[in-house]
Amino acid sequence: MDLFSKVSRTAGKHSPLEEEIRKLPVPVSSVFLGKDGKIRPAEFRQTDMALVCKGHDRIALVFPKIISKGCGAILEAVASNESGGISGKRVAVLFSGGPAAGGHNVLAGLAAVLGTGNTLLGVRKGPGGLVKGDVFEIGRESIKSIINMGGFDFLGTDRTKIKTAEQFEMVKQSVVKNRLDGLVVVGGDDSNTNAAFIAEYLAKELIPCSVVGIPKTIDGDMAAGKYLPISFGFDTATKIYSELVGNLNQDAASAVKYYHFVKLMGRTASKITLEVALQTKPAIALISEEIAEKNMSLAQVVDYIVRIITLRRFKGINHGVILIPEGLVEFIPEMGRLIAELNKVLAEYEKDVADLPSVENKREFLLPHLSAQSAQLLASLPPDLQEMLILDRDDHGNVKVSQIETEKLLIDKIRYRLSEMKRHTDHFFGSEEGKIVATPGQIEDFKKVTLSTQSHFLGYEGRSSKPSRFDAAFTFQLGLAAGSLVLAGKTGYMAAITDFHKGGRVLALPLTGLVTAEMRKGKEEFVIEKSLVDLSSPSFEFYAKNRDKWAAEDCFSSPGAIQYWGPTSRQLPIIVALDRDYPGFDSFDMGEEKDVAGGE
Amino acid sequence: MDLFSKVSRTAGKHSPLEEEIRKLPVPVSSVFLGKDGKIRPAEFRQTDMALVCKGHDRIALVFPKIISKGCGAILEAVASNESGGISGKRVAVLFSGGPAAGGHNVLAGLAAVLGTGNTLLGVRKGPGGLVKGDVFEIGRESIKSIINMGGFDFLGTDRTKIKTAEQFEMVKQSVVKNRLDGLVVVGGDDSNTNAAFIAEYLAKELIPCSVVGIPKTIDGDMAAGKYLPISFGFDTATKIYSELVGNLNQDAASAVKYYHFVKLMGRTASKITLEVALQTKPAIALISEEIAEKNMSLAQVVDYIVRIITLRRFKGINHGVILIPEGLVEFIPEMGRLIAELNKVLAEYEKDVADLPSVENKREFLLPHLSAQSAQLLASLPPDLQEMLILDRDDHGNVKVSQIETEKLLIDKIRYRLSEMKRHTDHFFGSEEGKIVATPGQIEDFKKVTLSTQSHFLGYEGRSSKPSRFDAAFTFQLGLAAGSLVLAGKTGYMAAITDFHKGGRVLALPLTGLVTAEMRKGKEEFVIEKSLVDLSSPSFEFYAKNRDKWAAEDCFSSPGAIQYWGPTSRQLPIIVALDRDYPGFDSFDMGEEKDVAGGE
Repeated sequence: MDLFSKVSRTAGKHSPLEEEIRKLPVPVSSVFLGKDGKIRPAEFRQTDMALVCKGHDRIALVFPKIISKGCGAILEAVASNESGGISGKRVAVLFSGGPAAGGHNVLAGLAAVLGTGNTLLGVRKGPGGLVKGDVFEIGRESIKSIINMGGFDFLGTDRTKIKTAEQFEMVKQSVVKNRLDGLVVVGGDDSNTNAAFIAEYLAKELIPCSVVGIPKTIDGDMAAGKYLPISFGFDTATKIYSELVGNLNQDAASAVKYYHFVKLMGRTASKITLEVALQTKPAIALISEEIAEKNMSLAQVVDYIVRIITLRRFKGINHGVILIPEGLVEFIPEMGRLIAELNKVLAEYEKDVADLPSVENKREFLLPHLSAQSAQLLASLPPDLQEMLILDRDDHGNVKVSQIETEKLLIDKIRYRLSEMKRHTDHFFGSEEGKIVATPGQIEDFKKVTLSTQSHFLGYEGRSSKPSRFDAAFTFQLGLAAGSLVLAGKTGYMAAITDFHKGGRVLALPLTGLVTAEMRKGKEEFVIEKSLVDLSSPSFEFYAKNRDKWAAEDCFSSPGAIQYWGPTSRQLPIIVALDRDYPGFDSFDMGEEKDVAGGE
Repeated sequence: MDLFSKVSRTAGKHSPLEEEIRKLPVPVSSVFLGKDGKIRPAEFRQTDMALVCKGHDRIALVFPKIISKGCGAILEAVASNESGGISGKRVAVLFSGGPAAGGHNVLAGLAAVLGTGNTLLGVRKGPGGLVKGDVFEIGRESIKSIINMGGFDFLGTDRTKIKTAEQFEMVKQSVVKNRLDGLVVVGGDDSNTNAAFIAEYLAKELIPCSVVGIPKTIDGDMAAGKYLPISFGFDTATKIYSELVGNLNQDAASAVKYYHFVKLMGRTASKITLEVALQTKPAIALISEEIAEKNMSLAQVVDYIVRIITLRRFKGINHGVILIPEGLVEFIPEMGRLIAELNKVLAEYEKDVADLPSVENKREFLLPHLSAQSAQLLASLPPDLQEMLILDRDDHGNVKVSQIETEKLLIDKIRYRLSEMKRHTDHFFGSEEGKIVATPGQIEDFKKVTLSTQSHFLGYEGRSSKPSRFDAAFTFQLGLAAGSLVLAGKTGYMAAITDFHKGGRVLALPLTGLVTAEMRKGKEEFVIEKSLVDLSSPSFEFYAKNRDKWAAEDCFSSPGAIQYWGPTSRQLPIIVALDRDYPGFDSFDMGEEKDVAGGE
């Protein structure tokens, strides 16, 4: 074959890495292995472990059918002693929400555990496709092409929330029409909440179809402590962001010119930022949960950064990397209040505001309706951001918080502050509390240096990568667990894996133990609480203890690209290892490796 | 050691990958190996190969001392037969310009070939450091810590151009004071031109110091065809961009929601974009050189993209990735003319423009001074861009072309065009030439779909990565070659490696054969011509032949992260393999692998 043909042949996901990566073996926990070493379904037994159920009475009323004994009782997988396999079952799987690395291995795990005696079906384009009944049978050949591959494209995904009675009825019709014995929902907190409602609805309607959730989200906020240390996709995404942040650290120190402001995806929780900070040791990493806890103002956040930039300058370091979690703005209490007030006022005076011709007019109208603090804050923001806060609303009339360019807002504010400091050095330097101690020479040096910045947003490039070895293993086993749950007739559970350092322990967490009732805008809503950064966790405390050292000097790491072969290919997230007290983060153990792509 | 200590220990470039990657062996071409298998300097012999020398008479006048016989005669390295080694030589090395992966391996190669009998010195912070004489001895222990590591931080770098008589004299003083027998300049076209001038100056001043250049730039535009297929850093950078673009391809197909507009670094040449396109097969990749050649207007570029977006919609594809080379704007002839006119008018009326209070006033003043075409074009650009073109000038008073957010300009224009098409379907759809053939149903569908976009700029994250195995090997050998040239007393050469597929052939290209005389603003300047995408090269022709297919369907590749171990770790750039007629791109061969980090 000539080279042109070789290059042509790489089209359609046949690059050398993609071809080789399909062949990689995947570890399988012993509970899924028969005596012949082949994959088979596990059984589930009751344990004395339970999730703490919040608002049990309300939950019991909403989910009378699927609520488990004691509300939060956890099941554990054990190797089955049955000799004969279950057959004739039909199980459908869907992806919900944003892509995360490893989704396709959930399918591969399901296919492996269902074996040839049962049928695996795929739902096209997420919950929306389920409502429409867009279901197809997944052939074994397809599994060979998608195993260890990234993305959600084999099924597609969407963000439909199944809410209305009509939608639930249509889901039921899809289940009945396709004679589904099981439905596996791969999604985040909202999708798993939805899975609980679907499970309840089908049980109420006496449709014998198990509904099982799979914890997916790169944000890492769909977790349950020691029972489920992390969701899938987090490891791959943070490794990619760490590669890039590490490269920027290295570049900053090489070009000795720029501060790189890097906003990291992760809508609410700062877990991604914390993990990337532990991997790369940047000059600064902001953790939203801490800023909220300390009730810091925007100005205080800016001053925190400015102080570090200044102290680095005194050491001759005028470069570095600053990590900013995507959700920061809402966690700065005064910004959160401003946004809440704006949402309220804009809803109340929708017409008035719409009728005013210019942004300036709208702002003039709005300011007196805000609290003095919020009005001052709004007026102090860069014009672009003010315009965005006033004009850009989502479908519910709310500010599109995720679209706020926080990194640019901070750069803007930091610039003003630095130029103010240069002009009024006596206000900012000195031995009084809150001021920066500096020699006259240092102050003169400080006045000479300029701040050059680059801003980045890392997000989409981390969602659809080929899964790390960890995520590939994790998701394959989640598939094995979900398939086993369905074959065992369990409904309303989320598949979970824990103890990644000693063979992998396979659990089933009752969705009713994860869901809590919450009042939102005067309405009771049922949600799975997001797992945020816990400020008393070992991982955060370790970060807090070390960050001053990392801020003071360039002692970054550049942990590099995800490796699929070689000595560093088995790393797991540092925050998981620290918070779950593992002996190391350099090698996971989820069981014996099996060639799972090589055919039947 | 507990886990906290393990994580602490990763600070300062001791992450698991960094620790392991230092141990990787590096191939060494046979010309650098003695019979004992140890590294030793090669000798250089004349060949009948030569670079075509442009403007030979002018070059000969400017470089009378270093010009080689026949101007462009190329030397080739051969294994030395000498038994005794050369000792007592002192060789300094500096980095110039932006970082590129592999710089530290140049140092490692130099250290290896100089052996313990000679002294390797480092110049801190680039040519500026050379002028200041900021030189230090590089210990062997340092080499162990930097081998296979990314960035330029061990030495630092800057962008000082050595131009004035005073600067040349200071360089001479640095050379004399440090008793340098050799100076190795790691840089791009400008730095290698500078190296030629330094070589000439030292020769004229009778200072016996060899000056040797090393071809560095991620852009890949410092190349010399079959004698030097590519500069170092290109492979690593394009692999990182291909990883990210591949991930975005996969994400776009998974989320089925976004067009990702990705601007790729590479100031002038579109080589990075071409390589990334061949690696990833995106929906669209613009090649500046082609757009210039075809004299396309901004509107024509927009229409080209809009047509592909529309045809994809007809197939139900409303997502994809669009690659945009950083230098695009200057290659669109009408934009180039506008910028040239603006530079001229703004220089001529500097005071008048400065005195006018607002951007609107300045624009009003400027428009009558432009040609009608340029005035119309300027007025049709988004307000932000107009403002930037009018206000933001570099130190020479020129438009900062590299800061133009081309990706956002295109998104803006495409949006307008699509909404125009929705409102005036009869102008755009039909069987007449230039219109898009569509059924009434397709047009109705087209009118319903919205365009969601994300914009990205990939650049800095690709410069300071740990070098790919290819770049690690390439740069180590460039170091061996440069050290050998210095020991052989050759001056005014650039080290080069070619034939990456069969052991690596080591050449020395005379800098005078690369430099050409050019008239710039009425002044004669000497430059190394940038190696742009050749529209008749096999790599471009292959791309041009396949792009319609890649545009029509999602048949992308997602080639994944750089691998340092395993079956895909030895890939080399596809454009090199295609243009130099190699049998494959999946495995380079630059000689026998040697453990070069393990100590003496």
